Amino acid sequence: MRLSRYFLPLLKETPSDATIASHQLMLRAGMVRQNSAGIYTWLPLGHKVLKRIEQIVREEQNRAGAIEMLMPTIQSAELWKKSGRYDAYGPEMLRITDRHDREMLFGPTNEEMLTDVFSSFVRSYKDLPKILYHVQWKFRDERRPRFGVMRGREFLMKDAYSFDVTPEEARKSYNKMFVAYLNTFERLGLKAIPVRADTGPIGGDLSHEFVILAESGESAVYAHRDLVEMDAPGTNIDFDGDLQSVVDERTAFYSAADEMHDAEAFAAIPEDKRMEARGIEVGHIFYFGTKYSEPFDATVMGPDGKPNLVEMGSYGIGVSRLVGGIIEASHDENGIIWPTEVSPFDVGIINMRAGDAECDAACDDFYAKAQAAGLDPLYDDTSDRGGVKFSRMDLIGLPYQIIIGPRGLKDGIVEVKTRKTGERENLSPDAALAKLTA
Amino acid sequence: MRLSRYFLPLLKETPSDATIASHQLMLRAGMVRQNSAGIYTWLPLGHKVLKRIEQIVREEQNRAGAIEMLMPTIQSAELWKKSGRYDAYGPEMLRITDRHDREMLFGPTNEEMLTDVFSSFVRSYKDLPKILYHVQWKFRDERRPRFGVMRGREFLMKDAYSFDVTPEEARKSYNKMFVAYLNTFERLGLKAIPVRADTGPIGGDLSHEFVILAESGESAVYAHRDLVEMDAPGTNIDFDGDLQSVVDERTAFYSAADEMHDAEAFAAIPEDKRMEARGIEVGHIFYFGTKYSEPFDATVMGPDGKPNLVEMGSYGIGVSRLVGGIIEASHDENGIIWPTEVSPFDVGIINMRAGDAECDAACDDFYAKAQAAGLDPLYDDTSDRGGVKFSRMDLIGLPYQIIIGPRGLKDGIVEVKTRKTGERENLSPDAALAKLTA
Repeated sequence: MRLSRYFLPLLKETPSDATIASHQLMLRAGMVRQNSAGIYTWLPLGHKVLKRIEQIVREEQNRAGAIEMLMPTIQSAELWKKSGRYDAYGPEMLRITDRHDREMLFGPTNEEMLTDVFSSFVRSYKDLPKILYHVQWKFRDERRPRFGVMRGREFLMKDAYSFDVTPEEARKSYNKMFVAYLNTFERLGLKAIPVRADTGPIGGDLSHEFVILAESGESAVYAHRDLVEMDAPGTNIDFDGDLQSVVDERTAFYSAADEMHDAEAFAAIPEDKRMEARGIEVGHIFYFGTKYSEPFDATVMGPDGKPNLVEMGSYGIGVSRLVGGIIEASHDENGIIWPTEVSPFDVGIINMRAGDAECDAACDDFYAKAQAAGLDPLYDDTSDRGGVKFSRMDLIGLPYQIIIGPRGLKDGIVEVKTRKTGERENLSPDAALAKLTA
Repeated sequence: MRLSRYFLPLLKETPSDATIASHQLMLRAGMVRQNSAGIYTWLPLGHKVLKRIEQIVREEQNRAGAIEMLMPTIQSAELWKKSGRYDAYGPEMLRITDRHDREMLFGPTNEEMLTDVFSSFVRSYKDLPKILYHVQWKFRDERRPRFGVMRGREFLMKDAYSFDVTPEEARKSYNKMFVAYLNTFERLGLKAIPVRADTGPIGGDLSHEFVILAESGESAVYAHRDLVEMDAPGTNIDFDGDLQSVVDERTAFYSAADEMHDAEAFAAIPEDKRMEARGIEVGHIFYFGTKYSEPFDATVMGPDGKPNLVEMGSYGIGVSRLVGGIIEASHDENGIIWPTEVSPFDVGIINMRAGDAECDAACDDFYAKAQAAGLDPLYDDTSDRGGVKFSRMDLIGLPYQIIIGPRGLKDGIVEVKTRKTGERENLSPDAALAKLTA
């Protein structure tokens, strides 16, 4: 993409209502613009990051055997009256009356709706297990939306739902999602820790939150350092195999957020292994048994010909929240530092003298070759001065910058800057390209 | 995907409220399920088609130089009061009051919101031209939703908006979208005709609808046959070049829907060139000048240092509606016939004797090879009988079926059925694979 053709409206001033780094940086880097309290437009740069995160989440759901579908945003209140959550949800639920005076709502989550859909079709234990998911916009009418996309009202969530015949089978589905989540966050460049969680208004008796560490985190996290340092299971794992040991290996360590913290158990950990930090919740998984299958009479015939209520779980990842979460975990005083897998462009090309025939030709050539090599480059072909271009490129945080100017070209070299380390190298254009595609 | 692991809930009975073929077939083929009047869940098969259409629309928007972003579904009523459309829109607008008693609405379109966003950032003619678009769920509270996803209440739309300094430049943006639309519909396997259109409540003075021909079409279409038979401009066209001649070549022919029909002008066409048919609107493009830039004071400084109101247009494609539209245009008595580019899977593999070791091995092998060749196969590995498998595969309409049974395997052959023609061929597995990847 040529910057002259792109729409990248940077802000020079940091808006005063933006109090945390990710909110400030997303506004300054032209990623989002607020339309109403807690409701954002995703400008082109922000939209690209959002889509890249969504795609990684999708790939890891698919790998775990979950099947994608899509439920609508607007739901009938009937469904929620059936589960008893219509009244329980309170003012966070955006309630709507349509032209025929029917009570509707903008879905904050989809347990009721999918249980209803599922039970209308599935009759036999032979059709289970199933994990279905969608990535859809949700709405929670927060009393005080803040922190930009981290606590917005309209937000993008991946929510999966598992259906099984027995609690033992349901545990297998839970484990699949547990492992898929560890892999997902690792691919996103994040260190995410599973912590024991309160099941809250969703109900149920087995639940973990996935928390990433960041100073601005909303809650305190207490964990054994060995858990924090453990690698993800990896995408080669067999999801049909036994995952219990993989889960047990991790849940054996102490880890909890505020509300589930047990100071005594934590104190029993060797002092050098105790980690106390701030965390941001980016995922939450629940096993809740028959909580929803009961009111919706979601049963399947068992092998014995008798009906069984299906055992269910739900599994959420805050996709739009992750955009902010990744920035909280990865930025410096000059701007964002994108992990490679979610960066909106793979590389920035800076033309140091746009309008100079030789410099333009060299930049055009590098741009074309980078695209041909399968990279997605952002080419700053504007007539802005070098300082503006440098700070802009640092702000938007692409992993690499290729700086091409008349002086270097005389010696047949371009400069390659690695955003994260600030390291600079002088290389021939071919060697620079080879470095990017390595 | 193995069918035994997929979620494909077919209906045996055609629901009585489904009166047109696409609605019936989408329900029977397990593509969608209605949640409330005009509000649908996209089941896995339907979701895949929706996403493939969306991706083709996206690619052709990008090719024309439009830039993707994403606006939220929930909008502030303030924006619509500013344009005067808050009252004008009537009961089709889903109006919402949030917990702080602010008037909101579920966006039926985004002229106001994007003009507001754009004008808050853009100051100079140097930043133009720009075409921005998004693919987002919209809501129109139809009094009587019907025809399945063809006239639903919650629907997926691609809407693009162009911003230019002069009417002449705006015409160039209009032409880019005109050409992009012809290419988009051709790639979707559709014959779409541009017809002169009334500008309706959006306003403006240059507008075309894109209409596909189908017996169930909602409106009559009158056109010169040569226009109908003309090929799309093709994706190699230079969008920075002169597109006026490409547009003129087409608009020179008579073509109009009901409300713009001029019986006299139509009668002047040679009789064998007059085409009267039913059509389904799948796209609509408008140039509306300063209709929205005026109330939002969206101006840019011109080269002369004076502010100019930006000239705008908007360009919609009904993405979810197209799923139904394509089925209306392409089905037979046995089910759907997907054009290759939008088919949910590339090929169906039918195991004629699941459980038979040799047959399973041959199917597994073909399935693995098809995936390795970059195809996305649906493998019917269930224990259902052959007749059930055949009619199911015909119903869901994948372009090819590979039928693998013990008898053929003895001779080293599999059967390849082309869904559209019904043609059957006996080929070696390798030759069958070669045919699919040709």
